[in-house]
Amino acid sequence: MRYNQYAYVETDYATQVKELLQINFLPVDYQQCTFGELLATMVENTLAEVNLTDSTTRQAKLTEFAVSETETLASYLATQPQEMSPAQFYNVALQLLGYHVHYDYELSDPLSFMTKNALPVVENISNCTDLITAFYRLLNTRSQNGQLLIDVMAGKGYFADRRQTLPGSQFVLLNGKSLPVFDTSKVIREVVYVESDLDTDEDGQSDLLQVTIFRPVESQQLKVPALYTASPYFGGIIDNEKRNYSVDANLANACAWTNPQYEASNIIPAAKPSTANHENHPPVEKAVGKSSYGLNEYMLARGFASVFAGAIGTRGSDGLRITGAPEETESAKEIIEWLHGDRIAYTDRSRQHETRASWCNGNIGMTGRSYLGTLQIAIATTGVAGLKTVVSEAAISSWYDYYREHGLVIAPEDCQGEDLDLLAETCQSNLWDAGDYLKIKPKYDAMQKQLQTKEDRQTGQYSDFWEARNYRHQAAGIKCSWISVHGLNDWNVKPKNVYKIWQQVKNLPIEHHLFLHQGPHYNMNNLVSIDFTDLMNLWFVHELLEVNNGAEQQWPAVMVQDNLQADKWHEEEDWSDEVGHSTSYYPTDEGELQKDGNGQAKAAFIDQGGVEFNKAHLTESEWQYKFICGDDKWAKASLRFITDEFIHPVTIVGRPEVTVRVSSSLNKGQLSVALVELGDRRRLTATPKFLMRGGQELGFRFGTDTLQEFMPDKLTHAKLITKGHMNLQNYADMKKPVAIEPGQFYDLTFKLQPTYYQLPAGSKLCLIIYSTDQAMTKRPLEETTYTVDLSATAIKFKQK
Amino acid sequence: MRYNQYAYVETDYATQVKELLQINFLPVDYQQCTFGELLATMVENTLAEVNLTDSTTRQAKLTEFAVSETETLASYLATQPQEMSPAQFYNVALQLLGYHVHYDYELSDPLSFMTKNALPVVENISNCTDLITAFYRLLNTRSQNGQLLIDVMAGKGYFADRRQTLPGSQFVLLNGKSLPVFDTSKVIREVVYVESDLDTDEDGQSDLLQVTIFRPVESQQLKVPALYTASPYFGGIIDNEKRNYSVDANLANACAWTNPQYEASNIIPAAKPSTANHENHPPVEKAVGKSSYGLNEYMLARGFASVFAGAIGTRGSDGLRITGAPEETESAKEIIEWLHGDRIAYTDRSRQHETRASWCNGNIGMTGRSYLGTLQIAIATTGVAGLKTVVSEAAISSWYDYYREHGLVIAPEDCQGEDLDLLAETCQSNLWDAGDYLKIKPKYDAMQKQLQTKEDRQTGQYSDFWEARNYRHQAAGIKCSWISVHGLNDWNVKPKNVYKIWQQVKNLPIEHHLFLHQGPHYNMNNLVSIDFTDLMNLWFVHELLEVNNGAEQQWPAVMVQDNLQADKWHEEEDWSDEVGHSTSYYPTDEGELQKDGNGQAKAAFIDQGGVEFNKAHLTESEWQYKFICGDDKWAKASLRFITDEFIHPVTIVGRPEVTVRVSSSLNKGQLSVALVELGDRRRLTATPKFLMRGGQELGFRFGTDTLQEFMPDKLTHAKLITKGHMNLQNYADMKKPVAIEPGQFYDLTFKLQPTYYQLPAGSKLCLIIYSTDQAMTKRPLEETTYTVDLSATAIKFKQK
Repeated sequence: MRYNQYAYVETDYATQVKELLQINFLPVDYQQCTFGELLATMVENTLAEVNLTDSTTRQAKLTEFAVSETETLASYLATQPQEMSPAQFYNVALQLLGYHVHYDYELSDPLSFMTKNALPVVENISNCTDLITAFYRLLNTRSQNGQLLIDVMAGKGYFADRRQTLPGSQFVLLNGKSLPVFDTSKVIREVVYVESDLDTDEDGQSDLLQVTIFRPVESQQLKVPALYTASPYFGGIIDNEKRNYSVDANLANACAWTNPQYEASNIIPAAKPSTANHENHPPVEKAVGKSSYGLNEYMLARGFASVFAGAIGTRGSDGLRITGAPEETESAKEIIEWLHGDRIAYTDRSRQHETRASWCNGNIGMTGRSYLGTLQIAIATTGVAGLKTVVSEAAISSWYDYYREHGLVIAPEDCQGEDLDLLAETCQSNLWDAGDYLKIKPKYDAMQKQLQTKEDRQTGQYSDFWEARNYRHQAAGIKCSWISVHGLNDWNVKPKNVYKIWQQVKNLPIEHHLFLHQGPHYNMNNLVSIDFTDLMNLWFVHELLEVNNGAEQQWPAVMVQDNLQADKWHEEEDWSDEVGHSTSYYPTDEGELQKDGNGQAKAAFIDQGGVEFNKAHLTESEWQYKFICGDDKWAKASLRFITDEFIHPVTIVGRPEVTVRVSSSLNKGQLSVALVELGDRRRLTATPKFLMRGGQELGFRFGTDTLQEFMPDKLTHAKLITKGHMNLQNYADMKKPVAIEPGQFYDLTFKLQPTYYQLPAGSKLCLIIYSTDQAMTKRPLEETTYTVDLSATAIKFKQK
Repeated sequence: MRYNQYAYVETDYATQVKELLQINFLPVDYQQCTFGELLATMVENTLAEVNLTDSTTRQAKLTEFAVSETETLASYLATQPQEMSPAQFYNVALQLLGYHVHYDYELSDPLSFMTKNALPVVENISNCTDLITAFYRLLNTRSQNGQLLIDVMAGKGYFADRRQTLPGSQFVLLNGKSLPVFDTSKVIREVVYVESDLDTDEDGQSDLLQVTIFRPVESQQLKVPALYTASPYFGGIIDNEKRNYSVDANLANACAWTNPQYEASNIIPAAKPSTANHENHPPVEKAVGKSSYGLNEYMLARGFASVFAGAIGTRGSDGLRITGAPEETESAKEIIEWLHGDRIAYTDRSRQHETRASWCNGNIGMTGRSYLGTLQIAIATTGVAGLKTVVSEAAISSWYDYYREHGLVIAPEDCQGEDLDLLAETCQSNLWDAGDYLKIKPKYDAMQKQLQTKEDRQTGQYSDFWEARNYRHQAAGIKCSWISVHGLNDWNVKPKNVYKIWQQVKNLPIEHHLFLHQGPHYNMNNLVSIDFTDLMNLWFVHELLEVNNGAEQQWPAVMVQDNLQADKWHEEEDWSDEVGHSTSYYPTDEGELQKDGNGQAKAAFIDQGGVEFNKAHLTESEWQYKFICGDDKWAKASLRFITDEFIHPVTIVGRPEVTVRVSSSLNKGQLSVALVELGDRRRLTATPKFLMRGGQELGFRFGTDTLQEFMPDKLTHAKLITKGHMNLQNYADMKKPVAIEPGQFYDLTFKLQPTYYQLPAGSKLCLIIYSTDQAMTKRPLEETTYTVDLSATAIKFKQK
């Protein structure tokens, strides 16, 4: 497995020496040391578990290492060596990196193991200078646990032991990245209440928003940046899954649509923050909530404060949850205004004592996945002062693209029957405190009614209500730098969300990056195949500490993980429909999918909604696998067209577009189209496999994370590449329904979810046309016959 | 779900007041306070997240509570109340316990929720004395997360905030249990090397054993007890599962048995510990390994040191792993000798600087599950000085009962093909350090050969090799008090292990307790249904701090979790074959199982080993479920006899005994017998369901644990009650094989694994006679016909 590394910054020898001296790794008198003395000292320093001062014990440890099949490091050092073969050096180095002789590598040939794992090798170690360079590179090499060796050492107490001799209360960098020199045993954890300009609960007072801050104790002296995670889940999650809507329901005639309007809440401007010093009271409430994100903790050990807030409606805050609405964005943004010194906050809900973020250097980055990534997009579009960068993972860019698609109610994966009002309740955690409950409940009930009506599950149509929840309309306001991360197999927040915002972001005058991994609704921090956490360290140092470490040139704009080989990443300049050349495929009367010539038949299938599915007691993913494999029982409610085996690999890029001429036996209908790869092989696991659970130390005795990677799994017959759904009543206009006639043909044209998918040689491409998608659409109770005119049906995509 | 509580010690009012004053919960001037003042202060004190000194913020929090459907606590207090209804009090109390209004309970009726969850209620709160008692009981009531409220408060910083005002560096007790008043941000984590009397690696030096110690910083002033976990996995686990033996192999003629002998290793007595003060050097190596056991961490926050050692052959230690042998016991025991001051240890492997456990009060308890529980039994039998108590979970009491049964190779669940030599390699983690590897590997290879030969997988027979690995022979040497914990569904370490040692322990002059839960190979620390962790706190305070807190009378000798209702525990005096009355059942010619009269038929079945199983690609547990359900494909290789439906519930207790008159078509054979409950119902989950993951704080910012419980799961048709296996060649003597003739009948009599199983009314009991157990026995490649003479076949058990 390749431990690819993108965050290593090429560094000249003088800088190497300077940095190693600064962290006391290289002895001050290094120029007077012999080769053997330097080697012993640097190996001993790497063994951070031994107290710095005890030379007997430091030396005793050297007997546990071997330089060859016959010699321990201790006996080798006794020979007073003047140089070292790479094999001798890397036999020791591999042990330091956490590998085990015999079980991982053989002492007879360490270098072939280095190559296999893509670990960097210094080829020539014939003097002290070479040795210092070899160690500099080694400290900045990824260990077996995925972390840089210097981070592994930090996790054993390297910096805790040397705190007296390091420069106090300041950031220390190695190879452009911030080191965990901060004292994690003394982290400050506190709570404050920011005053909003909103009065969503209509009590005549501006809403207070609870903010939880984790910051280094050194921030009492040193101003530090903040990583802010806007998390509506932070106050707790109300489990209401059982209230999900039944999706076993007929489609409504979409012409019932009334275009529900967004309505803004009351505004009551907050008091202005004072600048008088005596008005700055230290917080008095300790944090109870915890950071839910390893990346924040990792950066906290490296000096970056970590800030969490749920904003309106969440536990400890006033107000109502209005999912996706401008009020939600506004309230979450106001936390940044406080961090940046532009808004007032108090020590408690009595609003008596003002408290300021005087520890903050005014540079704020945002982090988080899913809803927490979504709010980054939302806030970034406001252009709020102080927000320098976002690292938005698996984020929604338009709520219509989360709960709806092309005029249909379409569920996020594993969320059949969920909708916006239910998510609002999930996050309305201030209902949990009985005192707040007494006050909020009537307002909350009214808001629920409003959301339930306006989200309009009946018709599934776009409206002003959803328009107000599409952040892409405000993309021009984005001023901060941008990193998006998304799983190409994310069927919860579907890839269209990142794809569409990316098409705008890439044209803005801001630094922008995109990572596409092979996961579902997941983040990619601790993959073996890429040093994402190190890249983020480099990035945040650049953006929030304003250090010119070259982060912006360190890796390409678009990085795409290969779907065949998890430890291979494609380096691209863009992800769009402009990459590659256009190809079209046409269905034939014989069920083939060919590049030349349509079939002429009118092919029909009967859709029975969820009748069979509900009897079968399958999970939705079990159904989907059987369905795409062509299992008879499930395939009969579909049309399928299959290519010959591909002779050469082909990569499909961007959003395939389908045109289908179709008629429904009713005056309504929903059409689904899936693109599937057929072929028996061991594909990658759906989620990464955990390797060495808890094996990554985020700091010194400060929580852990787990290395992981997608791994070849058991043999499967097929894999979904992409799919899409559309309401027949939107054939003329995606934003407006029209009446349709039973038995009449209509031309539907729509794009599927975007992809970047390599079909290996020997596989086949399959186009499936169907109606009910058990995992996502409503499941009508009435039977519907769909007839497809093959002569006017095709699929078109870009390929590489 | 009932939050049963056994660890609450009845306490008089004067003691309540004394204890509440000691922890600063009750104000010093409490006798001058009004009812309302006392109520406000005690609620505010419970809200440990707010700084003690900030009265504005403390009061502001009171608005978040409600006493009724119309009144917040703040407004109620404004009325200067003189007394309180129980409903008003418990509306507030339930919030403090972590429950959520509306979602968990209604303000209109808190008391019915209290009753449903088995939470104690003080019925009358009409004056300050009542109120103090109500709060004392509340602090010692289990919260929603399963912990006592005082522990929840500690997790929010209650004691951290009050450290200055508490008595320094000493244990503080509440209701007989130790409180987490120790400063967990400063825990000392260090490594020492104990010198053994053994030289298992034959290098002419006594083996050094690495010990990792986690202890409160307060132990620099205060002598504290140690909880020692002997864990051969502590240095790391060598993953060699792929080397497991193939079990697709014919039985051997057991007469090939040669009774392999145990051979002792070399002895080289260690140096004597010095008593000179200048010879006591503080440790210089920091711990890298971590505690793997929440109970140790929980007690560490409460002042008890936590000590881990892997002993011979593990990483950082000398020597060879000799699984189950007296050397293993000896080396693991020697750690206690050092803790007790009777053995020498050094700061590193150069043996230059002696270091003593001068922080230890000389009282040692042991904890741990599985192999870690096994070593408790092993060490307890030595009667070593200093060991006061063991809490042995899911432990092996004889290694023959782990890898063998009645003359057969029988695998632990999910370990088909594993054996003692492979477990030795798994734990021989000193092979990982290349310097040690160079020295140890040849000796290790020789020991592997020896183990492979002597464990004798060919015949599966008992021998001197196994005799030396049966700790029960030394049970008379046990001097410490005893707690055993075992899952009644543990098919890894089968219940016979705990049952047989219990029959001896219960007759020794020591305190002894047994917990039998409904899990598999699992521990029970954080169940909803019982306050096990609190019981252990009470127990360790009694045994290791020698405080007379009444722990020994607090709960019955034997506690058995019900298999139908997880939150019900049976309180018993004993678990044996002497409980209840004897019942016999006989198979009939019609496939029934009846109390009167045998069948007369000779019934046969053909065993095909693993032929079908290997083709079917089922997991072993999938096979087992289909098999016990009577699925035709799998049932054909068995005989089955089924009772009528039980009219009244019946509980089977102890070890059912079967007699089977059987012939084999070959001159060898293995017979399996299972007892199964048939009936369609929602049985409990196999493992407990996680509730509020990470929701239990072990101390203040010091790691977490998770509440869990067995829950009604989906409908199943059958459940295995117990089973057993026997080699036909042992019909005459369990410890010696004899030749048998094909076609000749032999009477086998053997006991199944012990149980405590309630058959509900309406269920049926099924006796299954078969041969190959896909999950546990060898799977012969040759076909064998077994014929059972029903006239001499029966099963007999005790029932309640």
